[in-house]
Amino acid sequence: MNQDYIKPDNWSIIEEGFDVERVKSSESLFSIGNGAMGQRANFEETYTGPTFQGSYIAGVYYPDKTRVGWWKNGYPEYFAKVLNAPNWIGIDVEINGEKLNLHKCKTVSDFRRELNMKEGWYQRSFKAVLRNNTEILVRSTRFLSLDLDEVGAIKYEVTSLNKEAIVHFTPYLDAGITNEDTNWDDKFWDTYEVSHKGNAAYISSKTMKTEFHVCTGMLNQLFLDGKKQDVYPTVETNKTYASLKYEVKVEKGQTTELHKFGGYTVSLNHKQEDIASASAAVLKQASESGFEALLDLQKKAWSKIWEMADIVIDGDVKAQQGIRFNIFQLNQTYLGKDARLNIGPKGFTGEKYGGSTYWDTEAYCIPFYMATKNQNVARSLLQYRYNHLDKAIENAEKLGFTNGAALYPMVTMNGEECHNEWEITFEEIHRNGAMTFAIYNYLRYTGDYSYIPEMGLEVMIAIARFWHQRATFSTDKEKYVILGVTGPNEYENNINNNWYTNYLAKWCIEYCVENIEKVKSEYEIDYNRIIEKTKLGQEEINAMLKVAEKMYFPYSEKHQVYLQQDGFLDKELITVDNLDKSQRPINQKWSWDRILRSPYIKQADTLQGFYMFEDQFTKEELKRHFDFYEPFTVHESSLSPCVHSIQAATLDRMDQAYTFYLRTSRLDLDDYNKEVEEGLHITSMAGTWMSIVEGFGGLRVKNDRLSFTPKIPKEWKGYAFNVNFRNSILKVNVSQEGTTFNLEGEHELLIYVDGKEFTISPNSLMSV
Amino acid sequence: MNQDYIKPDNWSIIEEGFDVERVKSSESLFSIGNGAMGQRANFEETYTGPTFQGSYIAGVYYPDKTRVGWWKNGYPEYFAKVLNAPNWIGIDVEINGEKLNLHKCKTVSDFRRELNMKEGWYQRSFKAVLRNNTEILVRSTRFLSLDLDEVGAIKYEVTSLNKEAIVHFTPYLDAGITNEDTNWDDKFWDTYEVSHKGNAAYISSKTMKTEFHVCTGMLNQLFLDGKKQDVYPTVETNKTYASLKYEVKVEKGQTTELHKFGGYTVSLNHKQEDIASASAAVLKQASESGFEALLDLQKKAWSKIWEMADIVIDGDVKAQQGIRFNIFQLNQTYLGKDARLNIGPKGFTGEKYGGSTYWDTEAYCIPFYMATKNQNVARSLLQYRYNHLDKAIENAEKLGFTNGAALYPMVTMNGEECHNEWEITFEEIHRNGAMTFAIYNYLRYTGDYSYIPEMGLEVMIAIARFWHQRATFSTDKEKYVILGVTGPNEYENNINNNWYTNYLAKWCIEYCVENIEKVKSEYEIDYNRIIEKTKLGQEEINAMLKVAEKMYFPYSEKHQVYLQQDGFLDKELITVDNLDKSQRPINQKWSWDRILRSPYIKQADTLQGFYMFEDQFTKEELKRHFDFYEPFTVHESSLSPCVHSIQAATLDRMDQAYTFYLRTSRLDLDDYNKEVEEGLHITSMAGTWMSIVEGFGGLRVKNDRLSFTPKIPKEWKGYAFNVNFRNSILKVNVSQEGTTFNLEGEHELLIYVDGKEFTISPNSLMSV
Repeated sequence: MNQDYIKPDNWSIIEEGFDVERVKSSESLFSIGNGAMGQRANFEETYTGPTFQGSYIAGVYYPDKTRVGWWKNGYPEYFAKVLNAPNWIGIDVEINGEKLNLHKCKTVSDFRRELNMKEGWYQRSFKAVLRNNTEILVRSTRFLSLDLDEVGAIKYEVTSLNKEAIVHFTPYLDAGITNEDTNWDDKFWDTYEVSHKGNAAYISSKTMKTEFHVCTGMLNQLFLDGKKQDVYPTVETNKTYASLKYEVKVEKGQTTELHKFGGYTVSLNHKQEDIASASAAVLKQASESGFEALLDLQKKAWSKIWEMADIVIDGDVKAQQGIRFNIFQLNQTYLGKDARLNIGPKGFTGEKYGGSTYWDTEAYCIPFYMATKNQNVARSLLQYRYNHLDKAIENAEKLGFTNGAALYPMVTMNGEECHNEWEITFEEIHRNGAMTFAIYNYLRYTGDYSYIPEMGLEVMIAIARFWHQRATFSTDKEKYVILGVTGPNEYENNINNNWYTNYLAKWCIEYCVENIEKVKSEYEIDYNRIIEKTKLGQEEINAMLKVAEKMYFPYSEKHQVYLQQDGFLDKELITVDNLDKSQRPINQKWSWDRILRSPYIKQADTLQGFYMFEDQFTKEELKRHFDFYEPFTVHESSLSPCVHSIQAATLDRMDQAYTFYLRTSRLDLDDYNKEVEEGLHITSMAGTWMSIVEGFGGLRVKNDRLSFTPKIPKEWKGYAFNVNFRNSILKVNVSQEGTTFNLEGEHELLIYVDGKEFTISPNSLMSV
Repeated sequence: MNQDYIKPDNWSIIEEGFDVERVKSSESLFSIGNGAMGQRANFEETYTGPTFQGSYIAGVYYPDKTRVGWWKNGYPEYFAKVLNAPNWIGIDVEINGEKLNLHKCKTVSDFRRELNMKEGWYQRSFKAVLRNNTEILVRSTRFLSLDLDEVGAIKYEVTSLNKEAIVHFTPYLDAGITNEDTNWDDKFWDTYEVSHKGNAAYISSKTMKTEFHVCTGMLNQLFLDGKKQDVYPTVETNKTYASLKYEVKVEKGQTTELHKFGGYTVSLNHKQEDIASASAAVLKQASESGFEALLDLQKKAWSKIWEMADIVIDGDVKAQQGIRFNIFQLNQTYLGKDARLNIGPKGFTGEKYGGSTYWDTEAYCIPFYMATKNQNVARSLLQYRYNHLDKAIENAEKLGFTNGAALYPMVTMNGEECHNEWEITFEEIHRNGAMTFAIYNYLRYTGDYSYIPEMGLEVMIAIARFWHQRATFSTDKEKYVILGVTGPNEYENNINNNWYTNYLAKWCIEYCVENIEKVKSEYEIDYNRIIEKTKLGQEEINAMLKVAEKMYFPYSEKHQVYLQQDGFLDKELITVDNLDKSQRPINQKWSWDRILRSPYIKQADTLQGFYMFEDQFTKEELKRHFDFYEPFTVHESSLSPCVHSIQAATLDRMDQAYTFYLRTSRLDLDDYNKEVEEGLHITSMAGTWMSIVEGFGGLRVKNDRLSFTPKIPKEWKGYAFNVNFRNSILKVNVSQEGTTFNLEGEHELLIYVDGKEFTISPNSLMSV
């Protein structure tokens, strides 16, 4: 299972040795991003072996005409695809007349990749003997600037080891690219201007239909033995391509470097007509700083991120590498600067899932960003959904809902639903509840109530309306029921009364009404604005509350558990332990009907509810439900192990918690699912962070205070993490001997540890 | 709703007046077929208005690469498409240098179509004033020979009404055709030979992948004032086309005729290398007989069909026309000569549904063919499924079943499953039960037990094995349950314990075991062969019987009805009467989730079981279930009204029965669903026949005897039908005054009428 070629290291991801079979996987694992753009770790120079090329720009997508087998009313017409963007990293390298191509060299040795997570750069180096017997050493260092987020920089070094060599560097821009996952081989980009000036070139393209204008630019510098060379390149351009060719002679042992600054300026951030001049300006600024100075800034920027976000694990280098990889990738993907952006499940590492927004953000990612960044970042994520409220209302209207009820999309780029599977698109409606939960979670953590009157309440009202309309009254049960849904366990479809969905629906209505009351009494102006806009009256509120009050929850007296859905006990309840290994993963081995009628659970479903609403259940109830459901859970979603890890820790089952933790933290590094070449599982990485902080550390917010129940896996000597809580930064250090807390800031902080109150003074160490 | 442009007539379908908007609908309604081939009523001459071109050859299909949104394990790779075949009917007509094109004429008058169902021909005539002011009268008569089923004949007559005219006829063959419903615009046909000789031309093509070789041929004769002309045509050919151009001068008032004989010879019936010579031979034979003589044979052949199949309705010409249209189309589609063929839901009238085989055949069509044809025809239909048994076993294996369990496909051409919607393909498994039911129904009607030891038992065993494996034991209910199915009501998906499915499963197992016992004791050689082949042992039989014995059936004590499925009573039980008309048809107005959680029923589901197993329930039970379910039934399947019509008649609700009858009998003629341009609903036409014979006539087989409970709608004076029962032909004539029976054959027949026994003597009239 474990492909295990990544060298253990505390701070870097390291690959040693060149293996054609690993190239696509490594392209994913060594991906870099800066929140605004990103790319797979494709080689700069020509490579004719198997590769999956990908460069991506945040927020730039294409509405690819959807492909379905059998159309159903209500299906959206398109699926928003993250676009493979024009390639700016390419550098063709020719040595003594031979094009460098690792797939064709006589020998390749000392091949090494390093993704330095501490400092935010990626480097690849190797020795090669060309077919013309020139021996060379190549080292390429690349990063995407956090400071100038429209710029990336490459330092490409070539040393001739055995003879004099004529080296040609041909850095290029290529807008003639496609997506691997197009539905109908449509053309996604229209390139309309290719220009060059001196050492720079620019290509302006726009996306078809969505009309995002992007200028892809590059500016190059040539060095020999560290000295900048004043040479003029030979230019080649065509409709979608521009290259600048540099020639340099190197003696044996001498090194030449090409510094390439490149990247994108986008009409999302500039006037359309200014993108080319903006590109020129920012590349000029970068090149004038120079590669090394820009890299220094990069190191400082990452250092600042790590200061808050790092988790230190003592005594387990692979675990340490795993958690840092997760934290690093989350920060590469989303930095919270722009409320138009969100966290795609593959980040900037691949095309799969369309790179759009899922409920993963609300259910899994927000806690990480709340605890490791300024609270505005989480607020931006909430605002993203507020900005999409009108589209969510339209989406609900397509399904027959009225009166401002909203259904947030399963998959989206701009607020419109993209996904087309009726059992998901129309029925996996629990996602709507996650939107309200995220608001509650934000308020609970940050204490910032202002979001609710300003934006949140409107979202909550529209969602409560949805649940009100979606529930129907069963005269047979004399309760409100919610029929025909898919829960978080997507291995059951079109089920009735999914406990998690019903519970969320009831809670969303009640929490909404609670906040209507509060806003009414404390934020009169906002209240009046909202009521005028939503036309919400007391009669409707009463009707909603009736649905909440009389909501039906399937329950088994025999097992003393809430049932995942009405029919769960009719299934053949054979636990995963008793399922032959040859049958797994069931989603690759079984036909869909067999999966659906099996008791096997893809990811936490009832337990997802117990995770989100932990306070509302006793530990005994949690234990009973965990013991009932986990044995049927196959964890075939990357989002599954983290919730179970947290709950196992809560139940003092540290061995089990640790096993789940391992499964989540190195999922991609060790390629458990044999699919890392398609890209990384970005959103589930937030779950890994939760496994440590909420699971082992036991972090909760109770009564506006942080609460901890620190535990530690026996395999570790210690671990430490930081949380930003209401402008105090608390450093928590857990070891086998005990826990210490260290508070930054000016005010003391009252916390709970294992249920007891402690007051921590600023800038002092407290041991428990 | 009623487009109502077809003139009422007892024996013909007649359209008068030319309306561009009606052309595609009429192309469907005036389709002709002879069981071996068929085609839409496309014009012979050029027509540039909206048209849907279609010629089809029985058994010739293409495995079109399937198109799905999200792939599921177990999906088949292709969908078998009925192919639009090379066009042999085309005749370009030029008059005084102007190409005749009804879309471009100055005026078109006296346009008339007639499909003469009594005699089996189609005629179109019109007057037109061309842009060059030539006034012409055109009459085209066309039929597909029942006697020479590889041949069709056209007589195309042109009379110049106002001046001398030079007429050019250019009959052609065109193999450069496509399907409208291709998934990926693949090429379906490869044409490899175009040849001509004298007045004949031939094109040999083969289908891609399936490699059916087809020779499309034509042979032409030119007449002037009834005299055959000896003229030589000008030839034009290209890679996929061949035409022969004839020139003739007509005086004012004079008529010229082109007789075109054409059609297909296919490698299904000839050696591949012989198809061109076979085409030449059969066209020569046809042309030597001549158009009129061939037409005489056609009239005789249809007369023979009507002798048995006709239903006469006295006092209601539209009902008469409707029922004859249904009977005519069924006979055009399938004549039972070839066990490789079956009854496509669109026959030879369109592409939709892939023209493949559905459970419609077993559930709806077999009774019609049993009663109106020699019993070998029904046996052929059963044998079709026997021949596909190995594929049905493979199909079940793909879904994880073992040990020779079979799942017959939802949609097929060659036995392999074609359909790709998990809720249908994997879950609409009740279709499997229809296969066993058809065997039972055949035996009940014909008394021919021989089919069971020869073929039927193997099919029944494989199906019983499927049900045995598909049911699972619910420890909660202490019963066997069948989870995750779609019943005949496709407006519910992935439901648990669909009563109809569970009932069929139990019955299939029990009926299979009953027949195993009988074959064991009475057909020892067959029994030994079957046991050796199937490896069926007593232990497995016992296990099967246990599943049957302990099968669970959802039941409501409150309503005293079996429940369509476990969750039915949780729905909002608002009857169709209370559903706003603007919401209908719900399958066009509502998103799928809304349909699924509604109580609305697409077609008989629980009532389908009551129809098939009527004997096993009391009339009181039928009444209760009919009154419970019908009010929720939207009848949005063409297969729905007939069952309800029969049951309403059984319950002595003749007004309701008649209303349902009307809905089914003129479904296409009056285009209730506004989709007739896509083709006709062939399989549901058998349901119309059942509505009269089983519904109004009350025909049943009880204790090996025919039984009737004749009733008559008050709107009719009388109706009469014939049934072929075990080699006796009984003519039944029902009027408002009473019923008469008239028996052909040599032996007396004992029948039941209204529960009383009567003995009818041969060739005598009995009044009741």
